[in-house]
Amino acid sequence: MSLRPTVDFLLHHWLQAEQLNQRERFADHSRETFDAVLDTCERIAREKYAPFNRLVDTQEPQFDGERVILPQATHDAQKAYAESGMLSAAQDYAIGGMQLPYTVEAAANAFFAMASVSIGSGMLTTGNANLLMAHGTETQKRVFALNEFSGRWSGTMCLSEPQAGSSLSDVATRAVPDGEDFESDPLGPRFRLKGNKMWISAGEHELTENIVHLVLAKIPGPDGQLPPGVKGISLFIVPKKLVDTEGALTGERNDVALAGLNHKCGWRGTTNTLLNFGEGKYPVRGAAGAIGYLVGQPGEGLRCMFHMMNEARIGVGMAATMLGMAGYHASLDYAKNRPQGRPVGPEGKDPNRPQSRIIEHADVKRMLLAQKSYCEGALALELYCARLVDEQHTGAPEAADEARLLLEVLTPIAKSWPSEWCLEANSLAIQVHGGYGYTRDFPVEQYWRDNRLNMIHEGTHGIQAMDLLGRKVLMENGRGLQLLAQRINATIERAIQMPDLAAHANALGKALQDVGAATKAAWATGNPAEALANAVPYLQAFGHTVLAWIWLDVALAAHSAPESAARTGRLAAMRFFFHYELPKMGAWLGVVSRRDATCADLPEAAF
Amino acid sequence: MSLRPTVDFLLHHWLQAEQLNQRERFADHSRETFDAVLDTCERIAREKYAPFNRLVDTQEPQFDGERVILPQATHDAQKAYAESGMLSAAQDYAIGGMQLPYTVEAAANAFFAMASVSIGSGMLTTGNANLLMAHGTETQKRVFALNEFSGRWSGTMCLSEPQAGSSLSDVATRAVPDGEDFESDPLGPRFRLKGNKMWISAGEHELTENIVHLVLAKIPGPDGQLPPGVKGISLFIVPKKLVDTEGALTGERNDVALAGLNHKCGWRGTTNTLLNFGEGKYPVRGAAGAIGYLVGQPGEGLRCMFHMMNEARIGVGMAATMLGMAGYHASLDYAKNRPQGRPVGPEGKDPNRPQSRIIEHADVKRMLLAQKSYCEGALALELYCARLVDEQHTGAPEAADEARLLLEVLTPIAKSWPSEWCLEANSLAIQVHGGYGYTRDFPVEQYWRDNRLNMIHEGTHGIQAMDLLGRKVLMENGRGLQLLAQRINATIERAIQMPDLAAHANALGKALQDVGAATKAAWATGNPAEALANAVPYLQAFGHTVLAWIWLDVALAAHSAPESAARTGRLAAMRFFFHYELPKMGAWLGVVSRRDATCADLPEAAF
Repeated sequence: MSLRPTVDFLLHHWLQAEQLNQRERFADHSRETFDAVLDTCERIAREKYAPFNRLVDTQEPQFDGERVILPQATHDAQKAYAESGMLSAAQDYAIGGMQLPYTVEAAANAFFAMASVSIGSGMLTTGNANLLMAHGTETQKRVFALNEFSGRWSGTMCLSEPQAGSSLSDVATRAVPDGEDFESDPLGPRFRLKGNKMWISAGEHELTENIVHLVLAKIPGPDGQLPPGVKGISLFIVPKKLVDTEGALTGERNDVALAGLNHKCGWRGTTNTLLNFGEGKYPVRGAAGAIGYLVGQPGEGLRCMFHMMNEARIGVGMAATMLGMAGYHASLDYAKNRPQGRPVGPEGKDPNRPQSRIIEHADVKRMLLAQKSYCEGALALELYCARLVDEQHTGAPEAADEARLLLEVLTPIAKSWPSEWCLEANSLAIQVHGGYGYTRDFPVEQYWRDNRLNMIHEGTHGIQAMDLLGRKVLMENGRGLQLLAQRINATIERAIQMPDLAAHANALGKALQDVGAATKAAWATGNPAEALANAVPYLQAFGHTVLAWIWLDVALAAHSAPESAARTGRLAAMRFFFHYELPKMGAWLGVVSRRDATCADLPEAAF
Repeated sequence: MSLRPTVDFLLHHWLQAEQLNQRERFADHSRETFDAVLDTCERIAREKYAPFNRLVDTQEPQFDGERVILPQATHDAQKAYAESGMLSAAQDYAIGGMQLPYTVEAAANAFFAMASVSIGSGMLTTGNANLLMAHGTETQKRVFALNEFSGRWSGTMCLSEPQAGSSLSDVATRAVPDGEDFESDPLGPRFRLKGNKMWISAGEHELTENIVHLVLAKIPGPDGQLPPGVKGISLFIVPKKLVDTEGALTGERNDVALAGLNHKCGWRGTTNTLLNFGEGKYPVRGAAGAIGYLVGQPGEGLRCMFHMMNEARIGVGMAATMLGMAGYHASLDYAKNRPQGRPVGPEGKDPNRPQSRIIEHADVKRMLLAQKSYCEGALALELYCARLVDEQHTGAPEAADEARLLLEVLTPIAKSWPSEWCLEANSLAIQVHGGYGYTRDFPVEQYWRDNRLNMIHEGTHGIQAMDLLGRKVLMENGRGLQLLAQRINATIERAIQMPDLAAHANALGKALQDVGAATKAAWATGNPAEALANAVPYLQAFGHTVLAWIWLDVALAAHSAPESAARTGRLAAMRFFFHYELPKMGAWLGVVSRRDATCADLPEAAF
């Protein structure tokens, strides 16, 4: 079974990605060039990623005191990825890119996430370089970003600190000017950094010649104190090894030291590290601190970093989606081949019949259709968001602005929804396998462990929820939510004319009204503490509404396709969502609308 | 933080366990003897189990070709458990038991499950021996059961086979009479067994001198064919090493061979095996096949085994509950001590304030209260079921019969509900920890992995659901469901008189009506295929109704207690369940009532 028909249907039949080729930036592209990219990625994922997914789980990164050792398979996979040109797929021809629409890039990367999410496909490197393309100087772009796009170097994002976790306002890494001439360095204003960064993925390894860390730090004020809050945060390039303005290594190691590898429940193919900056392990150029080059203006660091974080959040949503998809395909294959028991017929079970394959059991079908509904729905959402990114970058001004705002509202869902429901899909994939699914002889338990990370990194569920209810649905006087409602209503208006979709269209309309009413009720007192106490149930209800909309819209596209098993399956997955999932919303919105204080008011001693 | 106050409250204030001491069997017991048992178990669990929980996860059982090697800590823990007398706690004084109520035994065993579920507390051994006490001959009891109760030998249950899994009617292990004199063996009619048994926990190890396997097999008919269906299944004692009628080892190894260890996602402290019976690795007494002794009558094997499986299912529910509880306590401790960020106040966040501990964040409180609500509710349910076991065994005839029937209906819930929701609790415990929870430096990821087994073993979720909707709510003309409804209504009648509980009482009444109506609607066509297509959503809704009832009943007990933080917490956990959880039922019952065929009707090619 291949993912490709689903991807092709969503890209072409639903999103009509080829229409992008009417735009100047994509004018050289065609269905054929898109297909060629997908073919290449599908092949590399099949040959260099999938066969080694269990290997990278069992051979965790090891630190020998000097170097982090990763399996040869990881080196080979990342080399093949870089050689495919995917790191710079979206970049201009002028710098060696393909000017590929992000929609197609995201679809192509899905194959790697499905084959082996933790070997990695360069998401951080691309995001890091993209940030520099947006906020760096010409020299920073040329020296750092281009060497990342080529795969010669890789990139990280260094936000969290051990004492602060998600609370970025408490970043304590300190950056001070490096000498009198600090402003005249051609690589950017030169600082010395000192601090510790936690949860840094790919923070240390030998996969590439160099590692470009993007580091959040604070520049002390005249009183020597770090400014409080997030407004005092600046952004720095801190290369593992120092380089000159031509991108050649100078031979000097920067003072960035591995302080520890995190040993994780899953996602073990990617090194996750605690890094010490400027603690003196690798003294450099006769002064204390790791050398870093300011990106953008002082105090603008978080704004720059958010440029990278939004892409990263869509990337995490896609990773969660494809882990779910991998489990769906594995359990579907198992269910089609495993004989066991007999389905219940009108007269019960007949032990004289031969055993059936388990896909004939109604409850196994339920578990498979749930996975299909979660994972193919989530994939559609991620590709829809990717299409918005293209619209934001290449659309007419009004459409681009609408895309920007819709992305603001949808990003928390694109990140959180698959991380919750495609994890549930992975649990169902285990359940379909029965005891075998709980063993390491089958891949599904690893997918489940790998996927558990996605509700945590790049902003936890709780943080996505606060972002959605506390910021995104309010910003620009609620215009983002209104825009989303317009899109949803447009789908409803088309679906309501189809006899077999009308009831679903009405259910979606009701859900949308309920979300709107709950948003108002949550904020009725104007007190953020009351409004946000149930932000996560709000996020869950909002997410289910968005997915119901996505499914109804996909169903409209499926409707217009010729009769086929795939069409039947898509319409059934849509019906599953409306019958089994959307009705869950009431429970979540109830506590939001009442501003239920059962949890928030409970004194600590009562737990 | 200790579990003990919760156990004491449930046992004494709620279930009034001491009243059992008015019964002749328990007349020597008192609150003091109960406390002494709990004290001992709490201490052994703390000293011999908890410190080694991570060790048994990292040092998986190894097979050296001859023997299965387990960590010394496992030997020490099981020795301490056996020496405590807990293996025979419920047995008669005459055979060395304590005549302890099962309610107290179950509560005492909870401490071990919480400290290290996979080191094991002898649940299988006790269950195996209990089965022999119920169905074995006097010699079988004396030779096998008593040596298990003493801890000298251990026990297994061998049901599943690689080709049949949960489908016991397809058991293919063959048992043929062993010689002309097979019926005159003092240990029971002697057979030769040949077959493979999969998923056998504790199937091979050196923890005890001998292992007593209880094996399901079929005796071929006169035509040499195995009888079809479950009616042809018989039960056999197959000791790993042969013994004489005094229980001494004869020095002969029986032909039971380890064919493989299963490498699991979690629960790694317990060996899980594929065993070959009678395949010739250890030829014994000059003929082919493993020697086994018939228990009970031929063809009655499954009925006998169910005696053990019902206990095992309550045991699994308790294990799932206590894994959830372990995660709750760990994440509560973390939340009380980890400073990070600031709670949202009426004016938002103030970055000039020092960081708060994360228990001050509303969403962290929500995740903690959800865990408390799931796990303490599940513990109450398990203890309620344990109390029914005591009633069944020692109550007046009518009460005993009611207890039996209530247990029939509640066992699928006692097994399935904690395995789903206390797993969810474990996921929340990870989430409270953030990135740290995903590392192996904290215990919560292991609890989550360990707990994932519980939806699978001793009858999957799907099997529990078919048992509930296909058998238990129908049996004896629906009297079990009626009895349960009476108990629930009795709680409602008391609660409705309390101003702060009346709304919950009404909500529970509505839930109960909805379950009743859905039961009828599911069976309205009389077609099992239609009725059972959504058996799992039915199980989920039924489970939430039962838990809401348990919580309301616990709340009535809490109500009558003096004001305290613990009382406040119990009432809040009850309110959480009614506000956040019970409203989920509608989504599950909707598909049941409509006999939704979205999944069952989908052709295979459409997935």
